[in-house]
Amino acid sequence: MTSHDRPSVQVISAHSGDFVWRAGGALALYAERGHDVRIVCLSYGERGESPGLWRTPGMTVDAAKAARRDEAEAAAAALGARITFLDLGDYPLRIDDDGLSRIVAEIRDAAPEVLLTHVANDPYNRDHDAAHEATLLARQVAQAAGHDPSTPPIGAPQVLQFEPHQPEQCGFVPNLLLDITPVFERKRKAMECMGAQSHLVQYYTDLGLRRGVQAVRNGGDRSIVQAEAYQRVFPIVGDVLR
Amino acid sequence: MTSHDRPSVQVISAHSGDFVWRAGGALALYAERGHDVRIVCLSYGERGESPGLWRTPGMTVDAAKAARRDEAEAAAAALGARITFLDLGDYPLRIDDDGLSRIVAEIRDAAPEVLLTHVANDPYNRDHDAAHEATLLARQVAQAAGHDPSTPPIGAPQVLQFEPHQPEQCGFVPNLLLDITPVFERKRKAMECMGAQSHLVQYYTDLGLRRGVQAVRNGGDRSIVQAEAYQRVFPIVGDVLR
Amino acid sequence: MTSHDRPSVQVISAHSGDFVWRAGGALALYAERGHDVRIVCLSYGERGESPGLWRTPGMTVDAAKAARRDEAEAAAAALGARITFLDLGDYPLRIDDDGLSRIVAEIRDAAPEVLLTHVANDPYNRDHDAAHEATLLARQVAQAAGHDPSTPPIGAPQVLQFEPHQPEQCGFVPNLLLDITPVFERKRKAMECMGAQSHLVQYYTDLGLRRGVQAVRNGGDRSIVQAEAYQRVFPIVGDVLR
Amino acid sequence: MTSHDRPSVQVISAHSGDFVWRAGGALALYAERGHDVRIVCLSYGERGESPGLWRTPGMTVDAAKAARRDEAEAAAAALGARITFLDLGDYPLRIDDDGLSRIVAEIRDAAPEVLLTHVANDPYNRDHDAAHEATLLARQVAQAAGHDPSTPPIGAPQVLQFEPHQPEQCGFVPNLLLDITPVFERKRKAMECMGAQSHLVQYYTDLGLRRGVQAVRNGGDRSIVQAEAYQRVFPIVGDVLR
Amino acid sequence: MTSHDRPSVQVISAHSGDFVWRAGGALALYAERGHDVRIVCLSYGERGESPGLWRTPGMTVDAAKAARRDEAEAAAAALGARITFLDLGDYPLRIDDDGLSRIVAEIRDAAPEVLLTHVANDPYNRDHDAAHEATLLARQVAQAAGHDPSTPPIGAPQVLQFEPHQPEQCGFVPNLLLDITPVFERKRKAMECMGAQSHLVQYYTDLGLRRGVQAVRNGGDRSIVQAEAYQRVFPIVGDVLR
Amino acid sequence: MTSHDRPSVQVISAHSGDFVWRAGGALALYAERGHDVRIVCLSYGERGESPGLWRTPGMTVDAAKAARRDEAEAAAAALGARITFLDLGDYPLRIDDDGLSRIVAEIRDAAPEVLLTHVANDPYNRDHDAAHEATLLARQVAQAAGHDPSTPPIGAPQVLQFEPHQPEQCGFVPNLLLDITPVFERKRKAMECMGAQSHLVQYYTDLGLRRGVQAVRNGGDRSIVQAEAYQRVFPIVGDVLR
Repeated sequence: MTSHDRPSVQVISAHSGDFVWRAGGALALYAERGHDVRIVCLSYGERGESPGLWRTPGMTVDAAKAARRDEAEAAAAALGARITFLDLGDYPLRIDDDGLSRIVAEIRDAAPEVLLTHVANDPYNRDHDAAHEATLLARQVAQAAGHDPSTPPIGAPQVLQFEPHQPEQCGFVPNLLLDITPVFERKRKAMECMGAQSHLVQYYTDLGLRRGVQAVRNGGDRSIVQAEAYQRVFPIVGDVLR
Repeated sequence: MTSHDRPSVQVISAHSGDFVWRAGGALALYAERGHDVRIVCLSYGERGESPGLWRTPGMTVDAAKAARRDEAEAAAAALGARITFLDLGDYPLRIDDDGLSRIVAEIRDAAPEVLLTHVANDPYNRDHDAAHEATLLARQVAQAAGHDPSTPPIGAPQVLQFEPHQPEQCGFVPNLLLDITPVFERKRKAMECMGAQSHLVQYYTDLGLRRGVQAVRNGGDRSIVQAEAYQRVFPIVGDVLR
Repeated sequence: MTSHDRPSVQVISAHSGDFVWRAGGALALYAERGHDVRIVCLSYGERGESPGLWRTPGMTVDAAKAARRDEAEAAAAALGARITFLDLGDYPLRIDDDGLSRIVAEIRDAAPEVLLTHVANDPYNRDHDAAHEATLLARQVAQAAGHDPSTPPIGAPQVLQFEPHQPEQCGFVPNLLLDITPVFERKRKAMECMGAQSHLVQYYTDLGLRRGVQAVRNGGDRSIVQAEAYQRVFPIVGDVLR
Repeated sequence: MTSHDRPSVQVISAHSGDFVWRAGGALALYAERGHDVRIVCLSYGERGESPGLWRTPGMTVDAAKAARRDEAEAAAAALGARITFLDLGDYPLRIDDDGLSRIVAEIRDAAPEVLLTHVANDPYNRDHDAAHEATLLARQVAQAAGHDPSTPPIGAPQVLQFEPHQPEQCGFVPNLLLDITPVFERKRKAMECMGAQSHLVQYYTDLGLRRGVQAVRNGGDRSIVQAEAYQRVFPIVGDVLR
Repeated sequence: MTSHDRPSVQVISAHSGDFVWRAGGALALYAERGHDVRIVCLSYGERGESPGLWRTPGMTVDAAKAARRDEAEAAAAALGARITFLDLGDYPLRIDDDGLSRIVAEIRDAAPEVLLTHVANDPYNRDHDAAHEATLLARQVAQAAGHDPSTPPIGAPQVLQFEPHQPEQCGFVPNLLLDITPVFERKRKAMECMGAQSHLVQYYTDLGLRRGVQAVRNGGDRSIVQAEAYQRVFPIVGDVLR
Repeated sequence: MTSHDRPSVQVISAHSGDFVWRAGGALALYAERGHDVRIVCLSYGERGESPGLWRTPGMTVDAAKAARRDEAEAAAAALGARITFLDLGDYPLRIDDDGLSRIVAEIRDAAPEVLLTHVANDPYNRDHDAAHEATLLARQVAQAAGHDPSTPPIGAPQVLQFEPHQPEQCGFVPNLLLDITPVFERKRKAMECMGAQSHLVQYYTDLGLRRGVQAVRNGGDRSIVQAEAYQRVFPIVGDVLR
């Protein structure tokens, strides 16, 4: 599918809105830098993350999916990213062998430098855990020399967990505060596409400012206004002390 | 003392050997890059970390200190770093208000970008804990606008914990694998200065290779041979996903 | 099934005995207060928790289930609670999509204020982990606006983990010591119904006293004799400092 | 000093501003309910938490203390609380035997139902750790039958840790979201008294809203607008499942 | 199959090489002592742990399995152990009810005093987690009085987790340093059988020395040269303080 | 003082009763085996652990110390152990350089195979933490070649933490269940010497049974009736898988 002529960042999102609220800044930042930014939505969040839609009389699962898909495509476009929907179902999100193979194929195709996904243990939403687990497992399979000889194995991309809605309850401890100030307007536009969850726009705008204040407190440049928080799974390798 | 005309890296070392075994690569790396590399030895390790010396008949604490000082100065020179000895005593290392003030003065003078020190909880060696705690506390005091108006407050340097002798027993989880391949010969020369602990040279040479293998496994360049492991205290702030 | 004319407490029990030993006091307490107390037994514990039965020559799985069912129904009656058996099998307890849907239906039907279940990580008994995970996942699905439009979504009930047999090995840290003194005789009667595990009656009687002593030590009224220990999953919301 | 004719809530605050930002809502809430609300400031935060003051030419430690004292007294009055200053020094806050005895005397005098203080491990600010440790230790001494026979031992008050500035970095996991909606205006007034840290008013106003949203998400009444987050040290004892 | 006329040690290995690198010393030690040493390979590691094989043109999964099987049988013979292959597949290793039953049957047949397996949480390799989980679950089922009346239930064997490749990233904290000095040559011979992973021989030889140094540091006899590290799941029961 | 003609076990007890309730079985067991069993009481527990005494009119600190000393000497005799009192004060127990030196001298004199002491973090009683910390620090100093040349350095004794009163709140996870059945009557006699805390005899008798049940559950011999729980600080070194 791709010629890997430019580096890639890939997000594995349990529901079709998660990538916007939690990682939209990172995606916009890398899209602006010319990276191939890929979004994989494991489900549309059609049952559990569309309360606004379900207040519409006569709503069906298919209609909810279609509405969520439209929103997510608009948001992806606003961020400058490509988006794929695997339609694996939500509440619960269950990933069987076929689902896993499709995620592996997406990862091999992108060969990303970095994978973004959910935390390991969100007591409010086990779909998030399923996405986390599937990301680690699919990354491992995508590395295997003996898996699907028609596509090459990937290297060892970092996995960054983005911020859950209630971070402390999920054991989330940020170790990267990413400056998203230059692209915040793009993130806001993407957030405004999410009609089914519009109550969250102000919440995540405020959160961006809060993480921005913390970024400055932790030695960041005073020009930082908005930030997103991430937690790495693997150690950094490099030659810089930081 | 300094005009801060170049960036600084500073290590707070409980005993006069710790900085060599655990962070010698990092110090050499930054010395080669032209940073002002500073070593603060809180003690000489004269009682507890000089078993070779104490096998000499008639050994005294003062003679042990002198021997350890000579070794450490040679090692610092090999690494390209400046070294200061606060002579606060070892086994136990106890840091009172005056000792703390001296550490604060050293930190304000260096205004380092990064501080290197021990882990928080080493059940084998509580002097290491004392050095860790003193580093966090001195960093905080050095930031205070109302502390010693004759020197300016510092910013918010990262604190990196270097690898303890038995990492798993100390809760050490590396999140930075630092490539020290280009300067490993310098580190070896520094290690060879430590006559009182010469049994450790091979041990830390092997450890460097082991961490190097792990660095490559975690996505590092295949040219990496030796690495040192570090664990950050504070989140990274930046605009790069890693 | 119910008109929700009174508040509900619901326990999700891996095996048909767990609710008695670990949460019988809580169930009796709320039954006496007029709550609708519901017990969902995911299995009968027919294979793994009925060693007494299996010493009977000619015992079969069906006969073990029947005997366990009789005991559990008697215990539920003694506590003043309703009981349902989902018969999902034990050792191992495996919960597939259909099993999950049935748990969701039970939770939606009860719309409980509080859910009681097992801890997340019991190295001795992974059926307990399965019940914990199913409770969190079923709670999430039961909240989804788009799940089964024939029954209404639930709110956000607290989940309380009851005490495992070897609490420290399971990471159990009680943060609620529930005074069960007024209903302890009811709990004892329920425990005495469990013929297949009669060796546990004295053990859990002593445990009740031990937790009672701790309750008083933690500021509880000196009239407390017996208590049960629980660990919350979610924060308390309220207007009282405690 | 007091006749204990009404119940008491007591906060042990490392610096003279901490109680406002982190626990002002709780204090106002209990003051309105008629409790005897007591604030013990271990230091004024004169060196480390008064950057605004130290930009004034000719500022001295005594002048900083006086200014901070005025602010804190005004804030306490706005909250309806009594305030005491122990003047133990900040950056670092060091609590010797005499300082500890004075804290014990304050606690015995108040005989509080609840103690509020800092978290155990704040890597940014070890004064907070010192206050936490002193609170636990002073509580223990205040309970001792053989300590100072002129005042009676206290019972076993709960200790609630209030929210640190960067909660995830401090291991803070809220398990109480306290509804402060009815008293938020009082808290705002108290915050506005803190001229030396005025940049924090907006930050903590936003945080109150954020915690309020979480309170509703965790099953709180939809009328909740602002909340404060706390983490308990000891288990709750009671007869209510929550 | 066996008459249990001698005690047994059993290892549950995700892939056919794991038992060699991580537990070969323990297996050789007990084989020399006359124990019945059993190896259960859940998969051959045919896809993910045979990069050398997959560089051969025309390699197939079946050929990779056969090559891995030959190597593992040679290694088992070198260690003095029996080996069984369950061929459940790798990358991912998925263990369904039938796979679980086969593991239970192996454990009941061996009735081991000790089970050896992987850690619970290896972010690099979820097959290891699957093997850990299956070991705990199969041990539980094997204990059940009502499971398969044709074979007797087992007791309560200890479960020891062997060392993962990157121990700190897996939460591995060794609490047993096993002296394997007397059998290290046997382990080396076994390692040399693993042609598909020959790059690991030096790595694990060095690791054996490193753990040996730590063993002496922790009070072991000075004659110890090589050791293997393990982490227990369950408490030790005994009458010796150690 | 001693010629080290027999192996030693040593307990470092914060108050003069702790060694009885928490480790009395271990001490009796090793005394019966002919070990040199040593008890070091850092304080008498005169203020904080003698509520019975302080109900006596006219009680003084000196009288409380004398009464506690008599009790502890009787208990030590019942256990077959030697006892030393350092009289460092309780509530709070503060250990300065001189106190530490005295503990080091005791440890060097005993040269114990095992040290027993309190857990690291008891939120109810910080004297316990102080004893834990002093034990680790004194052990380290006692190992130093350059400390006090008149007595020889010790080796690397294991440190076992005995069970605190509320184990889960202290992070206590037992990894040794010590069979004390053969000496339980001796422990009971020792407990009955502790007149100032007689309410605890039944409590710790029950706890012994509870830990005994768990010992059998974890694979111990069915003859075990009573056990004590311990948590190791350091890994075991040996040649036995357990």
